Amino acid sequence: MAMMLDQGQWQHVDGGVTAARGFRAAGIHCGIKADRKDLALIVSDTLASAAGMFTTNLVKAAPVVLSQERIQSGAAQAIVVNSGNANACTGAQGWADAQEMAALTAQALGVAEEFVLVASTGVIGVPLSMPALRAGIPRLPEALSRDGAAAAEAILTTDAFPKTSAVRFRLDGTTVTIGGMAKGAGMIHPNMATTLAFLTTDAALPAPLLRRALRQAVDRSFNAISVDGDTSTNDTVFLLANGQAGGAPMVEEDDALARFTEALTVVTTDLARMVVRDGEGATKLITVMVRGAQTPADARRVMSAVMTSPLVKTALYGGEPNWGRILAAAGRAGAALVPERVEIWIAGVPVVRGGQGLPGALPRAAEAMAQAEYELLLDLRLGSGEATGWTCDLNESYVKINAGYMT
Amino acid sequence: MAMMLDQGQWQHVDGGVTAARGFRAAGIHCGIKADRKDLALIVSDTLASAAGMFTTNLVKAAPVVLSQERIQSGAAQAIVVNSGNANACTGAQGWADAQEMAALTAQALGVAEEFVLVASTGVIGVPLSMPALRAGIPRLPEALSRDGAAAAEAILTTDAFPKTSAVRFRLDGTTVTIGGMAKGAGMIHPNMATTLAFLTTDAALPAPLLRRALRQAVDRSFNAISVDGDTSTNDTVFLLANGQAGGAPMVEEDDALARFTEALTVVTTDLARMVVRDGEGATKLITVMVRGAQTPADARRVMSAVMTSPLVKTALYGGEPNWGRILAAAGRAGAALVPERVEIWIAGVPVVRGGQGLPGALPRAAEAMAQAEYELLLDLRLGSGEATGWTCDLNESYVKINAGYMT
Repeated sequence: MAMMLDQGQWQHVDGGVTAARGFRAAGIHCGIKADRKDLALIVSDTLASAAGMFTTNLVKAAPVVLSQERIQSGAAQAIVVNSGNANACTGAQGWADAQEMAALTAQALGVAEEFVLVASTGVIGVPLSMPALRAGIPRLPEALSRDGAAAAEAILTTDAFPKTSAVRFRLDGTTVTIGGMAKGAGMIHPNMATTLAFLTTDAALPAPLLRRALRQAVDRSFNAISVDGDTSTNDTVFLLANGQAGGAPMVEEDDALARFTEALTVVTTDLARMVVRDGEGATKLITVMVRGAQTPADARRVMSAVMTSPLVKTALYGGEPNWGRILAAAGRAGAALVPERVEIWIAGVPVVRGGQGLPGALPRAAEAMAQAEYELLLDLRLGSGEATGWTCDLNESYVKINAGYMT
Repeated sequence: MAMMLDQGQWQHVDGGVTAARGFRAAGIHCGIKADRKDLALIVSDTLASAAGMFTTNLVKAAPVVLSQERIQSGAAQAIVVNSGNANACTGAQGWADAQEMAALTAQALGVAEEFVLVASTGVIGVPLSMPALRAGIPRLPEALSRDGAAAAEAILTTDAFPKTSAVRFRLDGTTVTIGGMAKGAGMIHPNMATTLAFLTTDAALPAPLLRRALRQAVDRSFNAISVDGDTSTNDTVFLLANGQAGGAPMVEEDDALARFTEALTVVTTDLARMVVRDGEGATKLITVMVRGAQTPADARRVMSAVMTSPLVKTALYGGEPNWGRILAAAGRAGAALVPERVEIWIAGVPVVRGGQGLPGALPRAAEAMAQAEYELLLDLRLGSGEATGWTCDLNESYVKINAGYMT
């Protein structure tokens, strides 16, 4: 049923990865993990346009290599995902296992193997439990439904909560939906098509336009978050577009694509922020805004240095307005910077002007830092370069989670 | 008294920054800190050749800017150092204060102001307590002695122990001593002439040769360590050479300079390793060796990525042989790398060959990781590039120290 939204407007809807028409999903427990869901499937009723972004790490898991190859066709119909094991650094066996996961899924669904994508997340260097997958994958089709909740749960590892988002909007006379789900927690860092994210839409876009929209949306969301500066062997974002909304397919880079990209960015930013909020041990979600940089690239450098500084991140945890650490991180970012020009706001409180602390600002800033979410704003006052990203605090829980991951 | 060492050999001696002839030092409490020593002085009996290396951070403390200017002359006689306050981000007042610190010291010692260097470490953005320094600096000359222990203590901030080293060796018929002291703990990262370090020698070298020796020694020591990836506004290394050993001055880059540099590197490596061992909260001192890289620069990139990875560092803390994290860090380092060629040893136990885990290796590696000091060795098997660095684990204590630094 078409909704009456104004052009260019959107609203959040429920349903996550199955909010768009013609998508179903399943999430079950097959035995890779001891007792939690560990196997998910996303299926489009019809063959869909497909785009993907993958880890830039040279050490790539087998499912990443396989999916990267397959998605070059620009078409896919199903995505099978396991959690609990990354199938990374598993050599020839891992490669065979990723292919078998896809083949079993293709067989269970009756779709061509080349249209099945694969993703894995979990422990590195341990062979997949193929008996569990061989028993589990054939059970997936019967578990498929228009409710994506079980799938959103089955892709999690150390996450504290499932991450889903969806928006609906009007696009050239058609009501279109974009939805998705993600998993995150550790190893979150820019330039990684970070973590696992699965996006679906019933809009009709050819693969080249889909790729363009995905790259822009990911650059402004998943590539602008950092939990710990590490990057994974498995990071993957998929976007499937099945055209079930019924509109005419987009054919060129026009206003409609821009509006689609904008709505897609709403979904990816929602998911990316949830990933940071659920950063391992995180108690704070901090938006880092840099403006006044000489170039956008410089703004991004400063944003990244501030977002990843352990000294800044521990100060965020401690609730201390230690602007010296923020300024020092900016100063080593490799960006043009004149300390005497820099202005810094913490949670809306101006703390630095002309590169120096403002008298009396610290108590007010410390008070504002008690909030669970706030903004660090740096104005370099050199140009018009801007960047926005999201980070979290670093605390004892991060250490505990990661010091005892294998045991 | 000349010792009978073979050419090119050296032995450790006591005395730290005052082990070399003609150097005295003092360390007192002047009131910047509540109750611990906070003011140090190092003096050469005669004017010395001087070299320095300074933070690459664009946000530089006033004493860094001042000392960077002064040391261009290649000569110095005294270094005054305060701890407890970094005199960074303190604007025009900070600049005036750094100059006054030097002037007061020059006056107290009766040396020309231009030959006094200044260093500060501690909290950023708070003006120096000049009343404390005005009362304290005139008391320094009477506290000078041939024992450097009080000075080594007075430069510390969150350090758990003072850091000193000295070596004595025979150089072209003369017995020469090189000694030094350092402070470290947080904000330790490569390419920063890291932390504060003060080096002295009674060898006779002109400033250009001294600079060359210092750069080489620092590159292989202070620039190859990492505690938390952050870098300071104040990092400084000074080296004074007063020629009091009595040998003929070196005049060119020859074997003698190479041997001098080798001995200097022993001292700087000792100090750098102590800085890592005393990394905030550190329980492990890990030597990261990379070999077989395509180039030395690639080896350094991989070394740095492994050394700074929070996931690797928490695994070191947990004693878990999580080689997947090591390999993943190497894979995102920006160096040429073929995962299938990589070999990894943890504490002498081979855990990865051909990019895959070796069966049965993990229990032995986990056992070996119980040691307080061991080696991570990565062989990329692509070329002959090598690099060695030192890092520590990341744990709850680091968070505690840094979340409550200001309060």
